[in-house]
Amino acid sequence: MKIVVLVGGVGGARFLLGVKTALGLPAIGAGESPHEITALVNTGDDVWMHGLRICPDLDTCMYTLGGGIDSERGWGHAGETWTVKEELAAYGAEPTWFGLGDKDIATHLIRSRMLRAGYPLSQVTEALCDRWQPGVRLLPMSDDRVETHVVIDDPEQPDQQKAVHFQEWWVRYRAGVPAHSIVAVGNDEAKPGPGVLAALAEADVVLFAPSNPVVSVGTTLGVPGVRDALRKSRAKVVGVSPIIGGKALRGMADACLTAIGVETSAEAVGRHYGARTEGGVLDGWLVAPEDHEVTVPGVDMRAVPLLMSDVDATADMVRAALDVAGVPLD
Amino acid sequence: MKIVVLVGGVGGARFLLGVKTALGLPAIGAGESPHEITALVNTGDDVWMHGLRICPDLDTCMYTLGGGIDSERGWGHAGETWTVKEELAAYGAEPTWFGLGDKDIATHLIRSRMLRAGYPLSQVTEALCDRWQPGVRLLPMSDDRVETHVVIDDPEQPDQQKAVHFQEWWVRYRAGVPAHSIVAVGNDEAKPGPGVLAALAEADVVLFAPSNPVVSVGTTLGVPGVRDALRKSRAKVVGVSPIIGGKALRGMADACLTAIGVETSAEAVGRHYGARTEGGVLDGWLVAPEDHEVTVPGVDMRAVPLLMSDVDATADMVRAALDVAGVPLD
Repeated sequence: MKIVVLVGGVGGARFLLGVKTALGLPAIGAGESPHEITALVNTGDDVWMHGLRICPDLDTCMYTLGGGIDSERGWGHAGETWTVKEELAAYGAEPTWFGLGDKDIATHLIRSRMLRAGYPLSQVTEALCDRWQPGVRLLPMSDDRVETHVVIDDPEQPDQQKAVHFQEWWVRYRAGVPAHSIVAVGNDEAKPGPGVLAALAEADVVLFAPSNPVVSVGTTLGVPGVRDALRKSRAKVVGVSPIIGGKALRGMADACLTAIGVETSAEAVGRHYGARTEGGVLDGWLVAPEDHEVTVPGVDMRAVPLLMSDVDATADMVRAALDVAGVPLD
Repeated sequence: MKIVVLVGGVGGARFLLGVKTALGLPAIGAGESPHEITALVNTGDDVWMHGLRICPDLDTCMYTLGGGIDSERGWGHAGETWTVKEELAAYGAEPTWFGLGDKDIATHLIRSRMLRAGYPLSQVTEALCDRWQPGVRLLPMSDDRVETHVVIDDPEQPDQQKAVHFQEWWVRYRAGVPAHSIVAVGNDEAKPGPGVLAALAEADVVLFAPSNPVVSVGTTLGVPGVRDALRKSRAKVVGVSPIIGGKALRGMADACLTAIGVETSAEAVGRHYGARTEGGVLDGWLVAPEDHEVTVPGVDMRAVPLLMSDVDATADMVRAALDVAGVPLD
């Protein structure tokens, strides 16, 4: 079976652990399997910082699936240290609010050097994955530069608005400053990364991880060609709601939804994605038991526990999603 | 008094501690003084590595004079850690033989980012010195890219020769592979850095630190215009021998001298620099007591202890040099 999963960072990476487990692969690292998992990873959070190209979602997936993640924090390296960051701050080099770990910097140095030498992000990612062996093919949604910017009230000049990089809004302000709008700059001219459209065309099933529907899955859907490929795919498309009982599974997704005028509810997000039969992208929509009354016209609903409390619970969610897609594992 | 000192890395930095002390400045950090010290720093050891621009001599001077150096090792930061280097090695990213410390990387990140943004090395150095306050004006010998390469027998194919960056010969092979030749690539087209010629024109005295006469002081002298400026300067030029009793004060300078066909002796190095009255660059030459019989035609000789065992001993050397130059402090 060929499975394609649209993912963001922490939530997406954890969901992929469940996909691997459901398919009989080791959660961490690579293994033999008749199945093939391809993750289309959001790159809209990527940013140049201190001359380094940082790809938070790709790295979170790579480290998580390769066994290098700090599993409590959910991002960054296990045993990470912060010497370079402290030293940059001692120089007064901005920005200082980003959690740039020493181990992480090695990844960024290799990536930045390869990008500057002309390698596309997809090849860079493949090279980095040589070490981590994530057991999942990690494809950047695009090799082109796409960066999500957020328009906020300027904290220094409250009567003015300004656009900041998503990372600044998310990490520096912890999404605590209301977003007037969210724009994935460059998205409208980006081309899908190598393998992205082919993966969608050949997929037996497509899943949306319970990642941020605006700045993760939404950004990947915004790459021209991706929605079309989804609509034309013979595979069923099943999404997993990131909203449970009106609350974002992971903090701050609600702030993104508010910014684009979508209510923070499993129903509103399902309707935002929309039924494939009605110009949307979903065939199925998994919601939590407390949301079992949710309806999205034209979409198969299933209510199952959606807390990714451990790998086995997540694998159960994946099995349910495959069942809704009509490609059950048993 | 305006003093200009031609320096390399470790030896040059220690010599500058003595210059500051002799002039009543604190050895570490900045202070009030009627005197002005300008160091013309060799940049021929500079190298791009892992996408970072590394300037070993500038950094060694900056950290030493600013109080950040690992004073036992003589280079790199006190309390340095090596996380990024180890992580780069885990990726298999070459080269792995260079001592790239975490704290150091912050310096390199700022420098590389500024260089890529178009700032010349001299301005980058000034910006970095804002933090370190070395108390000495550190001028790169040139803002242009100059890199010293060494032609050696290829360790993998002994019947062939290859050119390696000076750092590879010095750090990886510890100068243990004989050098057929040493070439400062780019030196013939380099322009002196901003302020270099003016400093030489306005100097009351010019000193050569007991730095490597080939790849440190020699490379600075090789920048077109520097020798002319020295010859025309009203200041006396006094060198301090890096060779004591036929041995290099700091390891491996002998390997460089051998490569350019100069004997490892205080006399040979003095003659290599040559008397200003005879087309060379020296007015005075400080040698160690055991070399008191050395003669360099046309050059004032003085035999004094030359071991930079501590700052006070080094300051004594500086006082002797100023005395030879005819600008005694008392």
